[in-house]
Amino acid sequence: MSKKAILDIDTGIDDALALAYALGSPELELIGVTTTYGNVLLETGAVNDLALLDLFGAPEVPVYLGEPHAQTKDGFEVLEISAFIHGQNGIGEVELPASESKALPGAVDFLIDSVNTHGDDLVIIATGPMTNLSAAIAKDPSFASKAHVVIMGGALTVPGNVSPWAEANINQDPDAANDLFRSGADVTMIGLDVTLQTLLTKKHTAQWRELGTPAAIALADMTDYYIKAYETTAPHLGGCGLHDPLAVGVAVDPSLVTLLPINLKVDIEGETRGRTIGDEVRLNDPVRTSRAAVAVDVDRFLSEFMTRIGRVAAQQ
Amino acid sequence: MSKKAILDIDTGIDDALALAYALGSPELELIGVTTTYGNVLLETGAVNDLALLDLFGAPEVPVYLGEPHAQTKDGFEVLEISAFIHGQNGIGEVELPASESKALPGAVDFLIDSVNTHGDDLVIIATGPMTNLSAAIAKDPSFASKAHVVIMGGALTVPGNVSPWAEANINQDPDAANDLFRSGADVTMIGLDVTLQTLLTKKHTAQWRELGTPAAIALADMTDYYIKAYETTAPHLGGCGLHDPLAVGVAVDPSLVTLLPINLKVDIEGETRGRTIGDEVRLNDPVRTSRAAVAVDVDRFLSEFMTRIGRVAAQQ
Repeated sequence: MSKKAILDIDTGIDDALALAYALGSPELELIGVTTTYGNVLLETGAVNDLALLDLFGAPEVPVYLGEPHAQTKDGFEVLEISAFIHGQNGIGEVELPASESKALPGAVDFLIDSVNTHGDDLVIIATGPMTNLSAAIAKDPSFASKAHVVIMGGALTVPGNVSPWAEANINQDPDAANDLFRSGADVTMIGLDVTLQTLLTKKHTAQWRELGTPAAIALADMTDYYIKAYETTAPHLGGCGLHDPLAVGVAVDPSLVTLLPINLKVDIEGETRGRTIGDEVRLNDPVRTSRAAVAVDVDRFLSEFMTRIGRVAAQQ
Repeated sequence: MSKKAILDIDTGIDDALALAYALGSPELELIGVTTTYGNVLLETGAVNDLALLDLFGAPEVPVYLGEPHAQTKDGFEVLEISAFIHGQNGIGEVELPASESKALPGAVDFLIDSVNTHGDDLVIIATGPMTNLSAAIAKDPSFASKAHVVIMGGALTVPGNVSPWAEANINQDPDAANDLFRSGADVTMIGLDVTLQTLLTKKHTAQWRELGTPAAIALADMTDYYIKAYETTAPHLGGCGLHDPLAVGVAVDPSLVTLLPINLKVDIEGETRGRTIGDEVRLNDPVRTSRAAVAVDVDRFLSEFMTRIGRVAAQQ
């Protein structure tokens, strides 16, 4: 039986790959997409999600609009580095036919309703700021105890990517991520620790391009844009990090990573605001509500990734 | 066959416990103690080592004087917090008979000679600043490739104890620790991640006190002093962390902890100077020269600890 899944995303090139990974995974039934700001504005992400769902042959999946900015801020502007990595339109300047579908209001209510309806049969995969999840926790006191969440975010054993200590998703709304970690929700953190070990190169995208379908060409074009940005921002890596897809991969199969049970927090004050780290006060609490991926089976994940994206790319 | 061991220590109450653990472990043959500054001045540590070796029935073990301060500094003064935790004399104001032995000069040369003589049969257990090891690496270009080192120091998945990011031993000489991690030496890091999970209480020390020997009473008195300091500095823990003894424990039996292979570095610049973290540039290097303990079998270690300290405490 497949597990129900919601993707909470800020689409974003690697979010687009995460979406494809989810749709290419028979183990998951994608019941909805909730949108957040981050790599792009909320509205841009929603437009991308709708167009990509059409392109990937899943126009029936509903898209819900989430919170447009961090709870502690009045608004949100796309960072220059985000536009450099993902393009102005978020998907590497690839032009997709606009969807005739519209995004629906109410991402937070959809998250709450889904958790209440599906309970342990649902996994929420969050690959942007945790603002929607924090809002759901605040709105429904029972949400945290019922939700199962896999996030792409944070950096536990390696430096951050927007500062020496902060990863981009967490940095957008450190308070929201801290709320999530401290809520008691079942949270699996897929951070830079592992996502920077899973690298994609143009050799991989060339395999999609050969398929010649619109989806394959769009995936190859946007991912090549992403790889090119990485050549500037992180030339030592030799490829682009498969951040968001790895979170989906772990939602499908946790054995792809080594998970360290640890009660996490986010520094919300001081110089290291935005850092994900073990909570020293709950270090010896026998109950560990979160776990962090600290190692990854790179070859097996890349193989799964190519298989699953390939399924979506190959369709006519 | 027992493995040869050198303790590089700044004695310190938990260094004293580490010394007892080593002497109580038939798997180790302690061939020397090298002294460093940190919890106490270099000279104070040496005086404590000599007195403790007498007390523990091992007056034949030589004690060598190491570097008196960090390579980047002109001198060293004991921090107020160190004196609070370890007492002015470093061993909780316990008065031990002064040894008639003297400390020898040349800790760095002793480390180099020992590594060259014993190679893979030697483990160096360093539980203070890494200044002596850094000096050995600089003095003998072949040292790093031959040395096997277990350190107590650092904090990878939890906050530091002298700042939100720095652990005390690393913080005394971040450059030296960075030299060690980047040297290619085989380094196992036993940090606050695990040592703050291995807690000793007055119930444990009471078992020593009942033995009634001078060693047992001294161990109980100094450790009670240490536990009392923890009640002020870290009341949420409910005991004192067995920092330095755990490093010895892992030198005897690495299976006491879960080790994450990771190429480590120390931040030596910026706000987070003194932080131990994975080196993003060597993240995907297939060769991992260091590993960090991220979980510990608490019950088994405490049992081993009580057995081994008990052996030393019980002797007449």
